[in-house]
Amino acid sequence: MQVLLTTQSDFQTIFNRLLATRAMDTSAVKQPVTEILENIRKNGDTALCDYTKRFDRLDITPQKLRITDEEIQAACKQIPVELMDALDIAAKRIKSFHEKQLPSNLHYEDESGFELGYRWLPMDSAGLYVPGGTAAYPSSVLMNAIPAKVAGVKRLAMCVPTPDGQLNPLVLAAAHKAGITEIYRIGGAQAVAALAYGTQTIAPVDYIVGPGNAYVAEAKRQVYGLVGIDSVAGPSEVVVVADKNNNPTHIALDLLAQSEHDKMAQSIFITNNQDFADQVIQAVNEQLDILARKEIAQSSWDQHGAVIIVQSWDEAATIVNQIAPEHLELMVEETNTLFEDVRHAGAIFIGKWCPEAIGDYVGGPNHVLPTSGAARFSSGLSIFDFMKRTTFLKSNEKGIQNVGPAAVAIANTEGLTAHALSISQRLKSLGK
Amino acid sequence: MQVLLTTQSDFQTIFNRLLATRAMDTSAVKQPVTEILENIRKNGDTALCDYTKRFDRLDITPQKLRITDEEIQAACKQIPVELMDALDIAAKRIKSFHEKQLPSNLHYEDESGFELGYRWLPMDSAGLYVPGGTAAYPSSVLMNAIPAKVAGVKRLAMCVPTPDGQLNPLVLAAAHKAGITEIYRIGGAQAVAALAYGTQTIAPVDYIVGPGNAYVAEAKRQVYGLVGIDSVAGPSEVVVVADKNNNPTHIALDLLAQSEHDKMAQSIFITNNQDFADQVIQAVNEQLDILARKEIAQSSWDQHGAVIIVQSWDEAATIVNQIAPEHLELMVEETNTLFEDVRHAGAIFIGKWCPEAIGDYVGGPNHVLPTSGAARFSSGLSIFDFMKRTTFLKSNEKGIQNVGPAAVAIANTEGLTAHALSISQRLKSLGK
Repeated sequence: MQVLLTTQSDFQTIFNRLLATRAMDTSAVKQPVTEILENIRKNGDTALCDYTKRFDRLDITPQKLRITDEEIQAACKQIPVELMDALDIAAKRIKSFHEKQLPSNLHYEDESGFELGYRWLPMDSAGLYVPGGTAAYPSSVLMNAIPAKVAGVKRLAMCVPTPDGQLNPLVLAAAHKAGITEIYRIGGAQAVAALAYGTQTIAPVDYIVGPGNAYVAEAKRQVYGLVGIDSVAGPSEVVVVADKNNNPTHIALDLLAQSEHDKMAQSIFITNNQDFADQVIQAVNEQLDILARKEIAQSSWDQHGAVIIVQSWDEAATIVNQIAPEHLELMVEETNTLFEDVRHAGAIFIGKWCPEAIGDYVGGPNHVLPTSGAARFSSGLSIFDFMKRTTFLKSNEKGIQNVGPAAVAIANTEGLTAHALSISQRLKSLGK
Repeated sequence: MQVLLTTQSDFQTIFNRLLATRAMDTSAVKQPVTEILENIRKNGDTALCDYTKRFDRLDITPQKLRITDEEIQAACKQIPVELMDALDIAAKRIKSFHEKQLPSNLHYEDESGFELGYRWLPMDSAGLYVPGGTAAYPSSVLMNAIPAKVAGVKRLAMCVPTPDGQLNPLVLAAAHKAGITEIYRIGGAQAVAALAYGTQTIAPVDYIVGPGNAYVAEAKRQVYGLVGIDSVAGPSEVVVVADKNNNPTHIALDLLAQSEHDKMAQSIFITNNQDFADQVIQAVNEQLDILARKEIAQSSWDQHGAVIIVQSWDEAATIVNQIAPEHLELMVEETNTLFEDVRHAGAIFIGKWCPEAIGDYVGGPNHVLPTSGAARFSSGLSIFDFMKRTTFLKSNEKGIQNVGPAAVAIANTEGLTAHALSISQRLKSLGK
């Protein structure tokens, strides 16, 4: 962990270095992923079962790739009722927030003789990748599946690896809550390939969402274009901006909530008070000891953590905008000004009673957010990811007579004769 | 060109084959593009000038990379006033349509103790790639730049190669109309790299849009993630659906307007009347002869063109949805039903007075559209490409008390202790 003062002469250099290493580097797996994709594309289910045997130690026939309704029901029965209730609360709040995003169609006539606008429609199908092992999060299933459902996507196919054949009941229960019925016990690049190209038993989808390791990320990158993808997610990040009127332990836990995700995760604390910074640093060290994932959190905090002492909240906003963090917590009295000044952040959590973990589970807004500074140009997952717009244009005789000649002029300049003629011949038949 | 009847037994097989070759294959240029990107990232302006000398035969210093205001002004003066007026009409209609897309922010309180919503903001900067040579289209400059301007993007940097140092006055005039002042005389993968990584003279951008050859497409694909990109565009396509109450020459010209773009372009005509189909095919052959780009159009029509005879408009809709065409023209009496049944298309042009070429230039909706079936999951360029959403969540004491326990339950299940503690410690300090 580094402590930086914006007043130190080498601040910008060190700060830039801090941000430089944030992207997920998948170049090492490019070649193996290309091979896996090619193999699935050519050999379908056979290759899929081969990889599942090799990587997940699960010897399986194509007929058994799909997890049965009975298995899903059995999984749900294993989950304590309090936890099912908690998933319910989460699902309801996520659904409610995403329903408010449903966009309006546009349809108007203009004075030139045109009717025009656009229509939003859901895509037909989407695939949801869910990682296995320690990163198998039921909350992630809800966050990825519910927007698709709200958007109106008819078919949602989920893939989750089951190493050694072990099903994860929580993930299946969350899928059940989200209304997913088509689930395959496959993972890795081979699962992404199956979703993108289809196999004999798995129909291809139009769009693939969900987090994964470097293989999954690289596979999504490589199939992008043939299908849509949500984003290539990097390590998780949080920036916490807080003044001294906060409980240092709360701040410390918020920082560690990012750090415990991944050794590559980054937690940055920004404050205007050196004494308070010291208290938070001490609290981090104390709280680290009681974490189940202490080793991961410690490594993340040591390698990528930072505390930045600013001279003003204006300066904090500038730094936040340079970081364009995935998550931003604002716990300062002048929250409103700071909120207005932040242009680039995936999600903002405001006030001392709104730790980012609330947003991870039950806030309502999506927890799939742009990482590694991608908040400069992209947004968190939403129903927009699962919808597309078709524009339309309708002209009457007056319309083409009004603007056709301008189009002909430009078309001729561009050397596109048929473009020009397709308009001028119509004008001619209208007697113009 | 193939004539297909939906009644023939091998229809689906041949139809599938027709669609299979549509994507732009950039695999052959993957390695050279990777090298160019790496070289620009490491060596900046020096490498940029080297490539410009090698590929565009233009020996240039970094100080001369930017096209001067004087050069832009001089270009505008070369353009006939009628053409400047035509560009004006186009620019105004494009601006007017895109202004209607400006999305609303969301901000509400819920009964559980939360304020939540999202805020749309433009990205800070965008780069616009404009191809050189025969594919240098002023209309494309307007279609790419105006949505960025309407979205509120402050900085727009354009790159256009100038082979042998030749400026394209039309492209510069269109850029001037669109309000672009920062223009560099560079092209290819090296221009994409300069926009993505920045060099000593070119500041990096957040997002890159614009069409290009395989090198440009592959470069955009490789920098995706570090910056945003619009899409990796493939060859242009049109599907024209028309009944016999149309002028066969008009239909033929509409088909050829796609074919003349590119040998890889695809034009498909769908009708329910064999005689009318024959008339259109004959008209295509007649009109081909008078086109400036006859050779290209002929090759495209011969290799990729198709005429499909359907039994009903329902069947036409099914076929259109399988194609998910970039452009769709509907010229049938029952337009409304067909329009409703089409779920996947980039842009729809309705009625006999609305050839697609109107939309290419002066319709208003964007002409940058999803190709190769990507309309299944993506949309044409719009101001949404240049904006992003930041969600926010604010809780009071009641909020965390209401839903905090559910979040703690899920966090503990996921083994994320710090997540759970960041909430439970706050609940504790509230006396819960």
